[in-house]
Amino acid sequence: MKSVRVGLMGLGTVGGGTATVLMRNAEDITRRVGRSIEIVRAAAREINEQTIFPAETTVKLSEDAWDVVNDPDVDVVVELIGGYSPARELVLKAIENGKHVVTANKALIAMHGEEIFAAANEKGVSVCYEAAVAGGIPIIKAMREGLAGNKIEWLAGIINGTGNFILTEMRDKGRDFDDVLKEAQALGYAEVDPTFDVEGIDAAHKLTILASIAFGIPLQFEKTFTEGISKVTTEDVTYAEELGYRIKHLGVARRTDKGIEMRVHPTLIPAKRLIANVDGVMNAVLVHGDAVGPTLYYGAGAGAEPTASAVVADIADVARTFESSVENKVAALGYQTGQEADINVLTSDDFETAYYLRLHVEDRPGVLAEVARIFAEQGISIEAVIQKEPQTEGSKVSLILLTQKVQEKRMNAALAKVEAANISESVTRIRVEHLG
Amino acid sequence: MKSVRVGLMGLGTVGGGTATVLMRNAEDITRRVGRSIEIVRAAAREINEQTIFPAETTVKLSEDAWDVVNDPDVDVVVELIGGYSPARELVLKAIENGKHVVTANKALIAMHGEEIFAAANEKGVSVCYEAAVAGGIPIIKAMREGLAGNKIEWLAGIINGTGNFILTEMRDKGRDFDDVLKEAQALGYAEVDPTFDVEGIDAAHKLTILASIAFGIPLQFEKTFTEGISKVTTEDVTYAEELGYRIKHLGVARRTDKGIEMRVHPTLIPAKRLIANVDGVMNAVLVHGDAVGPTLYYGAGAGAEPTASAVVADIADVARTFESSVENKVAALGYQTGQEADINVLTSDDFETAYYLRLHVEDRPGVLAEVARIFAEQGISIEAVIQKEPQTEGSKVSLILLTQKVQEKRMNAALAKVEAANISESVTRIRVEHLG
Repeated sequence: MKSVRVGLMGLGTVGGGTATVLMRNAEDITRRVGRSIEIVRAAAREINEQTIFPAETTVKLSEDAWDVVNDPDVDVVVELIGGYSPARELVLKAIENGKHVVTANKALIAMHGEEIFAAANEKGVSVCYEAAVAGGIPIIKAMREGLAGNKIEWLAGIINGTGNFILTEMRDKGRDFDDVLKEAQALGYAEVDPTFDVEGIDAAHKLTILASIAFGIPLQFEKTFTEGISKVTTEDVTYAEELGYRIKHLGVARRTDKGIEMRVHPTLIPAKRLIANVDGVMNAVLVHGDAVGPTLYYGAGAGAEPTASAVVADIADVARTFESSVENKVAALGYQTGQEADINVLTSDDFETAYYLRLHVEDRPGVLAEVARIFAEQGISIEAVIQKEPQTEGSKVSLILLTQKVQEKRMNAALAKVEAANISESVTRIRVEHLG
Repeated sequence: MKSVRVGLMGLGTVGGGTATVLMRNAEDITRRVGRSIEIVRAAAREINEQTIFPAETTVKLSEDAWDVVNDPDVDVVVELIGGYSPARELVLKAIENGKHVVTANKALIAMHGEEIFAAANEKGVSVCYEAAVAGGIPIIKAMREGLAGNKIEWLAGIINGTGNFILTEMRDKGRDFDDVLKEAQALGYAEVDPTFDVEGIDAAHKLTILASIAFGIPLQFEKTFTEGISKVTTEDVTYAEELGYRIKHLGVARRTDKGIEMRVHPTLIPAKRLIANVDGVMNAVLVHGDAVGPTLYYGAGAGAEPTASAVVADIADVARTFESSVENKVAALGYQTGQEADINVLTSDDFETAYYLRLHVEDRPGVLAEVARIFAEQGISIEAVIQKEPQTEGSKVSLILLTQKVQEKRMNAALAKVEAANISESVTRIRVEHLG
């Protein structure tokens, strides 16, 4: 049987990992797929400094990624450059040239996925992106195929390893955010500009993709509510622990009667939940289907070979479905073209979650009563209260509240009143998910 | 596009669940798969008492499962009868009649899979069995496709929900085995004859299948070492806990330099491992690939709708690959026909694990020294020792040992000497896996 000829764009961490895994496990892969997968071309900046392929390699090497998309000998273009541009243009050109595409680029799929999938559909080629979400975990496959019989009700994922590493260190060692971030940068977990990771943008890209697959809705990155972890303090991590919770940076997508919630934010989760115990740079996605109930998928969310594992699985899928018609391929976002649903995506005002609140109040009688009255007016039930002793005499105290589920606009109204009444200058609030 | 016509054999828990899910989620399933999936025929004993389909249903109902396999209007036969026979004969006849088969029958696949897959291959039809292992968890898909780029090094799974429920209750509530087993039977988790669950046979069927997929070896149920949980005592559960471990009934498959280990037995796992925290009737499988590292898949291992979730996913896969040639379908056991490896399967003598040992010894000086000497002679390193105070004066004491990894035949030799020297009448031993 004919071999599958791969052209790699990018030989960085993931590109290098992909080449390494393809070459090292070539025999096993061929035994599984029934065809050999052969790298015929690779492009990277400073290609002359590459050390992946031996000097005498038959792989055609160049600095220009366009050489890959225009090479008639390439069946599958693997895009591992990252970023929006020229990744978008390269991928669209590859499709135009009739090539299948495999990519690990979450930003590209979240922002330009609709355009790319439409072009691929038109041409009858596949665009696969398992590596774009949660690295080596086969979560796209699990949701699109493994849970195809379910109505997905909600999902919640730890889908940014850098953020999870930071929160894990803060909790385990009582270190503060800035300190751990510096270490993460030194270890290479976080970029020099850590905005995408710590402000939740990377997680929001991934959540956007997962929500589309879960609910059969178009990709709508701009409607994903995004809050990072840069304001989480060790104080909150400690109080959460006392209350039996862990703080994790979650991407949550939920189908409600009013519409779809898509949100990324720090979240208190009961410590006993399996996902609350996913630590360090590991990722996990909890998916709740109406038939299957809760399922969880755990693994490395980044790194050279874990990501390569997903890239190679996609190439194997492409190899198996070379001859399938568009209708017989798994649809890019899980639902066949034209079958997307037009479901309202909610703004944060309409989210419904429980809350952890930390107020900074005078240590005098009546404060809790005032807060409780304001909350009661908004129909907010308080589930637990902890008051911390003042650090020095006469100083303010921390008042920690856990509330029951409430519509976010009611919480906004209540907190505005708390601040207006000079009860607490500012209130720290973190959403709570029980994930039960 | 033509609909997929399904014939159901069995309308018990899983059959009923499958019909329910197919009908309830018909719209979503069609939006995903691009074809409707229609139940055209169903067979069950006492079909007249069925309550799944309304009285005026157009589904043809009969008591004879052979009507399903011989119905020319059926594209996919779904076998949910269970057991070896007549399931085997029915499935082989369905294949002979050119029908695709979906089954949840682990016993059938573990024992007769080779024969069935060969027949299916010959006919160019699919035989899918996602529901046979770990219920609703898409573990077969994850391993065959999602991890196709990896050399699987080992896997370890909690793959029998009944056993896990019993061990969880023993630990959480200090209850003993017989007591919890009775409750499990009352709750319907365990059969009236619980042998398959508590003696590990059910788990061994599943492990046999997972090992074949992991390593590309033929199904060899008879070579799977099988030990159940019926001899686990609350005492051992408690001591394990003190040492920082949990006792779980694991199926383990491992590739070693000498060959493949396939074993099912009670196992101490460090309490901090995610899989050690999988409780109650839930299942989880930890799979370690050379590229991806550790990945874990968690969900309900049994029950009507979780199992149906897997059955329906298989039907969806069949629908997508109706027109694919055998070479382009995912191979039944992950590796293409003729590509299975002939790797030696080890007997228990050659297993290498660490051990938890509980000895019943006289409370006198020198006992530990004697034991340590015997172990040292066999090259066994002791990692931890706990001696328990005697319950009454002069009575014997429990001596708990944790050893490092050792070849099982050395452990057998050491324990034979311990018993021969009248140090301890009998020794309780439980294997330890660190799963790191």
